[in-house]
Amino acid sequence: MSDQNDCRYDGAGVDAGLLAPVWAGTEALAGLSDEAWVAAMLEVEVALARAQASLGVIPAGSADAIARGARSTRIDVVALAQRSRGAANPVVVLVQELTAAVAAVDPPAAEHVHLGSTSQDILDSAAMLLAARTLTRIERDLSRVAAALAALAREHRATPMAARTLAQHAVPTTFGLKAAGWLGSVLDASDRVRSTTAGLPAQLGGAAGTLAAYQEYARGTAAEGSGPGHGIELAARFAAELGLREPDAPWHSLRIPMCDIGWTLSAVTGVLGKFALDVQGMSRTEVGEVGEPPAGGRGVSSAMPQKRNPVLATLVVTASRQLPAYASVLAQSMLAEDERAPGAWHAEWQPLREVLRLASGAAHTAAELAEGLEVFPENLRRNLHLTGGSIVSERLNVALAPLLGKAEAKRLLAECARRSAAGGPTFAEVLKEQQDLLDKLPDGVTVEDLLAPEEYLGAAGELVDRVLRRHAQPERP
Amino acid sequence: MSDQNDCRYDGAGVDAGLLAPVWAGTEALAGLSDEAWVAAMLEVEVALARAQASLGVIPAGSADAIARGARSTRIDVVALAQRSRGAANPVVVLVQELTAAVAAVDPPAAEHVHLGSTSQDILDSAAMLLAARTLTRIERDLSRVAAALAALAREHRATPMAARTLAQHAVPTTFGLKAAGWLGSVLDASDRVRSTTAGLPAQLGGAAGTLAAYQEYARGTAAEGSGPGHGIELAARFAAELGLREPDAPWHSLRIPMCDIGWTLSAVTGVLGKFALDVQGMSRTEVGEVGEPPAGGRGVSSAMPQKRNPVLATLVVTASRQLPAYASVLAQSMLAEDERAPGAWHAEWQPLREVLRLASGAAHTAAELAEGLEVFPENLRRNLHLTGGSIVSERLNVALAPLLGKAEAKRLLAECARRSAAGGPTFAEVLKEQQDLLDKLPDGVTVEDLLAPEEYLGAAGELVDRVLRRHAQPERP
Amino acid sequence: MSDQNDCRYDGAGVDAGLLAPVWAGTEALAGLSDEAWVAAMLEVEVALARAQASLGVIPAGSADAIARGARSTRIDVVALAQRSRGAANPVVVLVQELTAAVAAVDPPAAEHVHLGSTSQDILDSAAMLLAARTLTRIERDLSRVAAALAALAREHRATPMAARTLAQHAVPTTFGLKAAGWLGSVLDASDRVRSTTAGLPAQLGGAAGTLAAYQEYARGTAAEGSGPGHGIELAARFAAELGLREPDAPWHSLRIPMCDIGWTLSAVTGVLGKFALDVQGMSRTEVGEVGEPPAGGRGVSSAMPQKRNPVLATLVVTASRQLPAYASVLAQSMLAEDERAPGAWHAEWQPLREVLRLASGAAHTAAELAEGLEVFPENLRRNLHLTGGSIVSERLNVALAPLLGKAEAKRLLAECARRSAAGGPTFAEVLKEQQDLLDKLPDGVTVEDLLAPEEYLGAAGELVDRVLRRHAQPERP
Amino acid sequence: MSDQNDCRYDGAGVDAGLLAPVWAGTEALAGLSDEAWVAAMLEVEVALARAQASLGVIPAGSADAIARGARSTRIDVVALAQRSRGAANPVVVLVQELTAAVAAVDPPAAEHVHLGSTSQDILDSAAMLLAARTLTRIERDLSRVAAALAALAREHRATPMAARTLAQHAVPTTFGLKAAGWLGSVLDASDRVRSTTAGLPAQLGGAAGTLAAYQEYARGTAAEGSGPGHGIELAARFAAELGLREPDAPWHSLRIPMCDIGWTLSAVTGVLGKFALDVQGMSRTEVGEVGEPPAGGRGVSSAMPQKRNPVLATLVVTASRQLPAYASVLAQSMLAEDERAPGAWHAEWQPLREVLRLASGAAHTAAELAEGLEVFPENLRRNLHLTGGSIVSERLNVALAPLLGKAEAKRLLAECARRSAAGGPTFAEVLKEQQDLLDKLPDGVTVEDLLAPEEYLGAAGELVDRVLRRHAQPERP
Repeated sequence: MSDQNDCRYDGAGVDAGLLAPVWAGTEALAGLSDEAWVAAMLEVEVALARAQASLGVIPAGSADAIARGARSTRIDVVALAQRSRGAANPVVVLVQELTAAVAAVDPPAAEHVHLGSTSQDILDSAAMLLAARTLTRIERDLSRVAAALAALAREHRATPMAARTLAQHAVPTTFGLKAAGWLGSVLDASDRVRSTTAGLPAQLGGAAGTLAAYQEYARGTAAEGSGPGHGIELAARFAAELGLREPDAPWHSLRIPMCDIGWTLSAVTGVLGKFALDVQGMSRTEVGEVGEPPAGGRGVSSAMPQKRNPVLATLVVTASRQLPAYASVLAQSMLAEDERAPGAWHAEWQPLREVLRLASGAAHTAAELAEGLEVFPENLRRNLHLTGGSIVSERLNVALAPLLGKAEAKRLLAECARRSAAGGPTFAEVLKEQQDLLDKLPDGVTVEDLLAPEEYLGAAGELVDRVLRRHAQPERP
Repeated sequence: MSDQNDCRYDGAGVDAGLLAPVWAGTEALAGLSDEAWVAAMLEVEVALARAQASLGVIPAGSADAIARGARSTRIDVVALAQRSRGAANPVVVLVQELTAAVAAVDPPAAEHVHLGSTSQDILDSAAMLLAARTLTRIERDLSRVAAALAALAREHRATPMAARTLAQHAVPTTFGLKAAGWLGSVLDASDRVRSTTAGLPAQLGGAAGTLAAYQEYARGTAAEGSGPGHGIELAARFAAELGLREPDAPWHSLRIPMCDIGWTLSAVTGVLGKFALDVQGMSRTEVGEVGEPPAGGRGVSSAMPQKRNPVLATLVVTASRQLPAYASVLAQSMLAEDERAPGAWHAEWQPLREVLRLASGAAHTAAELAEGLEVFPENLRRNLHLTGGSIVSERLNVALAPLLGKAEAKRLLAECARRSAAGGPTFAEVLKEQQDLLDKLPDGVTVEDLLAPEEYLGAAGELVDRVLRRHAQPERP
Repeated sequence: MSDQNDCRYDGAGVDAGLLAPVWAGTEALAGLSDEAWVAAMLEVEVALARAQASLGVIPAGSADAIARGARSTRIDVVALAQRSRGAANPVVVLVQELTAAVAAVDPPAAEHVHLGSTSQDILDSAAMLLAARTLTRIERDLSRVAAALAALAREHRATPMAARTLAQHAVPTTFGLKAAGWLGSVLDASDRVRSTTAGLPAQLGGAAGTLAAYQEYARGTAAEGSGPGHGIELAARFAAELGLREPDAPWHSLRIPMCDIGWTLSAVTGVLGKFALDVQGMSRTEVGEVGEPPAGGRGVSSAMPQKRNPVLATLVVTASRQLPAYASVLAQSMLAEDERAPGAWHAEWQPLREVLRLASGAAHTAAELAEGLEVFPENLRRNLHLTGGSIVSERLNVALAPLLGKAEAKRLLAECARRSAAGGPTFAEVLKEQQDLLDKLPDGVTVEDLLAPEEYLGAAGELVDRVLRRHAQPERP
Repeated sequence: MSDQNDCRYDGAGVDAGLLAPVWAGTEALAGLSDEAWVAAMLEVEVALARAQASLGVIPAGSADAIARGARSTRIDVVALAQRSRGAANPVVVLVQELTAAVAAVDPPAAEHVHLGSTSQDILDSAAMLLAARTLTRIERDLSRVAAALAALAREHRATPMAARTLAQHAVPTTFGLKAAGWLGSVLDASDRVRSTTAGLPAQLGGAAGTLAAYQEYARGTAAEGSGPGHGIELAARFAAELGLREPDAPWHSLRIPMCDIGWTLSAVTGVLGKFALDVQGMSRTEVGEVGEPPAGGRGVSSAMPQKRNPVLATLVVTASRQLPAYASVLAQSMLAEDERAPGAWHAEWQPLREVLRLASGAAHTAAELAEGLEVFPENLRRNLHLTGGSIVSERLNVALAPLLGKAEAKRLLAECARRSAAGGPTFAEVLKEQQDLLDKLPDGVTVEDLLAPEEYLGAAGELVDRVLRRHAQPERP
């Protein structure tokens, strides 16, 4: 373990996010690397020792020595990964390394390393630790996204724009309502992140979930004073050491927590991806309604000098397109045989890291995008009027239905829209040729009035207010 | 619409569950068929009319006529499905049919059908209605599963058996703890079902989520008295009519509710699948620890007279293997462009029905399985002793570690296990040849004592009690 | 079985495609319904009887009687589906029904129904039969798509338009090359369909793949004359009867054929979805470059009279978004235990039907779309010139690089593009202000020359020709 | 780029396979790391320069200098990954680094780096290069698996064992047929790997697939002599340099090659996973029919000294459980907008690496497993006889059907099986009490004869021979 050379990662298989720029260079890189997993597993071993010392199962000095050993141990992760093939998991070899490191500082304490424990207790608890920290970072970034979207919603509460359905202009809406929609979804996702984080359980059960070896090692020690269930007391203290929830019972082959993480994060990348997808659509060359925050070198192309690509949105979408599939592997892993599944358990690790990394990178990137998003109201307006009024044909339908009957009104307006779409006169012009129709309009109501898209925004403003009020509320528990 | 012949489904593409026997013949069949969707959409149209009548937008008589029309309308679902290709959704044609039916009973009321509405309001709300009803059925069946598993956990609180990890005997556990593990997971899944059901939102937003047409139709009616936001008031009453949650704003392209349903149901089939998988494993011919509830014709083979296949467990597993993929389509559908996505929305419908059907069938089937599961304690005992004691070598390790050091103890026991596995003497016999080891045992402790699997059950009993206490609690809100 | 009432499907759970309009009303509806599966299974039973008769295992008269019985049998699929829960598959009950029907026409022949067979032989072979027929239909529709796209590529070989990358105008291309790209992909997918269809194997192995019962029944009959391997001879004749490939050995738990179907069809919906997605993008209101074939009632909205939604493209995209997930279930089903998996096998059926239906509907719909697609060259031209020349800034870069160096040229052009994007002068105008740059241009080369998008089409024409030549080739074997 | 310190990966986010031991320490580690991608992209830039030099577009000396620059450049992958966020892909920055390195050795040649190219040409071609190399390694390992399985099939051609369906003993089979089944599947997968490898296309199209910039740079050079299509000639030479297939046209947004890779590799891990799953099942403690090749430290547990876990099989299964989901992301990426999709393209990279790594690791590990698999014929025999003869009740059914009728025979045998399963007399003993039945047996046929499982193996031997013959054939083209 010790005399590794300085550049110990040569040929290591670096994954710095070259193929996943959404999280490259973010906290998700170091926070979820192989080294981070090793560090978390060592942290779990220390927490176990501390919990055992607090019950008198091992001397306090041993727990201290194990903590020192964990700090001083230097793990060659490449070699560790390779040797982990022997047990199909890295814990067995890691415990050997840790034991050696503890023996170097306090030989008797080395006997107290990993006492009564099993690989899964260590790996699962480490996974929950890293998940909790990542989810917390994600929630913090979602708060940034929410604040930025709330500002946009407020500022553009009354900025009209074209709503689009099935790729066609539909009726007017406001950019504020669009932003409020994104915001409401982000709040929904935040709620799920908070609730999932609070539920992440520590894992302590021993070889098959009975806590038997933990209790066996406690025989004849002070721990027995805490009653027959001192294994359960140990599990409680262990969870408290790690800041994780204490479950009713071990969950070694009952994997609903993994399923929760996957689907919560697919909700996160889902809502962020929706936002990013709309940004992409609105920044298309022909549309030009929003632009990404400019920055040196951002959005450039290797070939085309004029390019200013929506790269932040693209990075976010990238994550959103991958998450559901990885989450489905986690959900599928609930099909786990016996007290530890030969495969289902092991198949969780890589997709778990992937969903954490991608969602973390997406939240980080979405915050950057939301905080710097440029809105071009003149282009919103230009597009709104692009169809010469047919975008409010629904409104005309309402006005004409009582006069002509719903069906006939719709038929007539569709015909007008068809004629104007062909290129010649505008929708408004076509309409004004329908003298018999104009004659039927109530006094004082003109076609111009009915055709003003800005006057057909429904409850957009109030809906924005409702979502903003929710955002302003203190956090739900 | 009207004079359809009596056998109107010829060539209709019946899906009675021939390829999904897990829900064939259950309430999920009729409850989620095309006809059920038609009925739910009609129900939504009636709820809209009632909400509009309550605000004075349309006469109360119109709402009654629409309700009558909905009842009297007879939809040829085959033709309806085919004609739905024109708008890429079935609502446009359904509204024509309903309008005709209402016109037949009350011509002026026909003008009030689907007033100000849009296809997505109707289809989404209908989907939520069917989802709510299915989730409620699922929760009821999960309660049956839970009760049956609680009874097993209680009865077998102290029934020892072999725990297995990576397909090998590990240490002893109890059948009670196994059942309690299943039970705890089922309670977890139930919590998610309850919470998801409570959150299912009605959808009312109009063409693009501004409620504009609804408000436009209310101009000059009593509804205006309810203030500028009468669209919002309408949405509230509409949700109340349907018994669904009133969201802050329309969610037409903010699809987290779909993701929730998928996720929750994959948790449901995940926990049930884990239970079923264990039943399959324990009922293998060589293991024989449990058996499915016998019934005439159940478990038979077309070829082999002796067969008694674990078919209920198989049906449940079948659902569990499919759910995560379908749920991933729902999660992926959050990537929805604009105010209504050309594809992402439409791609939700079939997988939504599938997850509801499969989870519903799985819960129904798991209840049947859990309530009738036969346990064979003598076989549990036989298997527990199959390895001649090496199943408690972990315990011996604990006992010998202080005497020999952890590493040496483990090495020695592994060597004994290896020698006994080769077929000759049993593990116990090999151990007893280690005289120097025996000499070191504390006074009064014999190898026989240490080798009794029934004495190495850890906290299994207390863990069972904890889960049973949770089950006994009144439902969490 | 017999005296079912005429309207036997009441409450049957019709699935007429209400939630999947992409295949509603197409051949995929009747071709893959529960009834179609029943019919295919009966067809397989008849093929088995004929193969056995041809070998002398059963009398020729029995095979005829079984064929007659299969024709006369009337299956209540709803009841059959429900009763299939007993064996976790429908074959056991279906065989009872068929046996009764044969007994009604020829009692001794009833003893020869399903002789030596097992459920999986029947269901798997029926599935392959339906798959082969559906794949053949798909290939036929792909040929229609290809022919239509080839015509578009030929007609628009030189029609220039804006290419777009990352949602921004990139450089010019031609509509012909775009169509040729779609075409090439469709040909790739067709190749895979043809090859997969040719590889679809019959399944005949008996209870566990040894053909033992088939051989046992042949003892003492003429079949023994065909040697010890008469089971293998039977399998060959059975495959020939069905027009399916004869595999080397049974594949009851070796499920690569299922994986093949899933991924081949995800290639099909992938290439069609790409085409449809581009149609949607090009028919956006602001873009307006193509339009769907008009037809009565197509593309209408329930609310907005002006709407002409790209519904055919939407239907195709809908299928494309679902396929990969269902195909992943089929791939996952390769993880099948033993000689018949308790769950993995059964989990294939519904996703298999789904991928067949959706791909079939997508191919049918894409043919309609491709054959009627309207192209608007004036809008292609308008958009091409929308950026005032910056769409060819790459070309300017090439021209200026030798004069200024690549990096400086790119910097300068990016700066010009940035200034023109801000709204004021066009890119061309900004460029012409760079007098020192203009001075460096070779004699006779003007900025106008360099800025003509129509002159910067690269090898687009030749690339179109290559793909058209491939299309014109007779089919590869 | 230059003065990086020696330990340049600190905090780099190593992924050495700690969470994916199936490929840790194998060639897949270094062969697919971020550094390997960088190296492959540089290799592609060199190939482009060489192809351009061969056509006279750039001087031969420039191509050499670019090759030298590529060799001498030292890329800090961590910084590169981070900076790749600016363009949403790593090529833009990599080209800057390469240009600087070339400038250091030959300044004018620096102007010829990446000439006329675009990020996607480089990244896609690099991906195909790495895919081709990995697929070749996989095929080599599959050959090892096949050879080992062929040896097992040959050796155990006549070793009888219990076949199992739905987790229950079904009828007898042979271990040879089981191995032959695995073998046939591996050959099927090999065929797909070979065909997919041969089809992997180079990518060269320029910014939007027209080859325009490549041709523009060739103006006035010797390349023009090769005719108007010299862009196409360049693409051909480029593909030849890389040893990849030359496609008809660029495939930048026509992603069927990605779908192919995913599909093929899910077939690979599917067939290997089936093999591994069977090994796990057969090595269960109660079954004990096979064992993994022993090796120091393999299969050990951190807690239980007696454990010898099937870890190689577990590693393989781990890969198999993940592949289909990642492959589905690749298939989903076919839904790519325009000439380069903002997200769908970028979402391919990580799952592509993952499928290559996992399949590569699985093939490597499966070879180790197959070559060392231990078979325990005595346990195969013990289990075969475990049910006291009821495993051949199908055969008895055949014998008794002519005497009693099929239905009555089956009923009687099921009754006998039921009585013997209850624990008392064996199936054989129960049968022998049926005196009226015994009386009906043909002369010279005894119950003992009929009950010998070894005599009811059907065509198992011939089926083995067929698969072995296929294996012995020279490789199909």
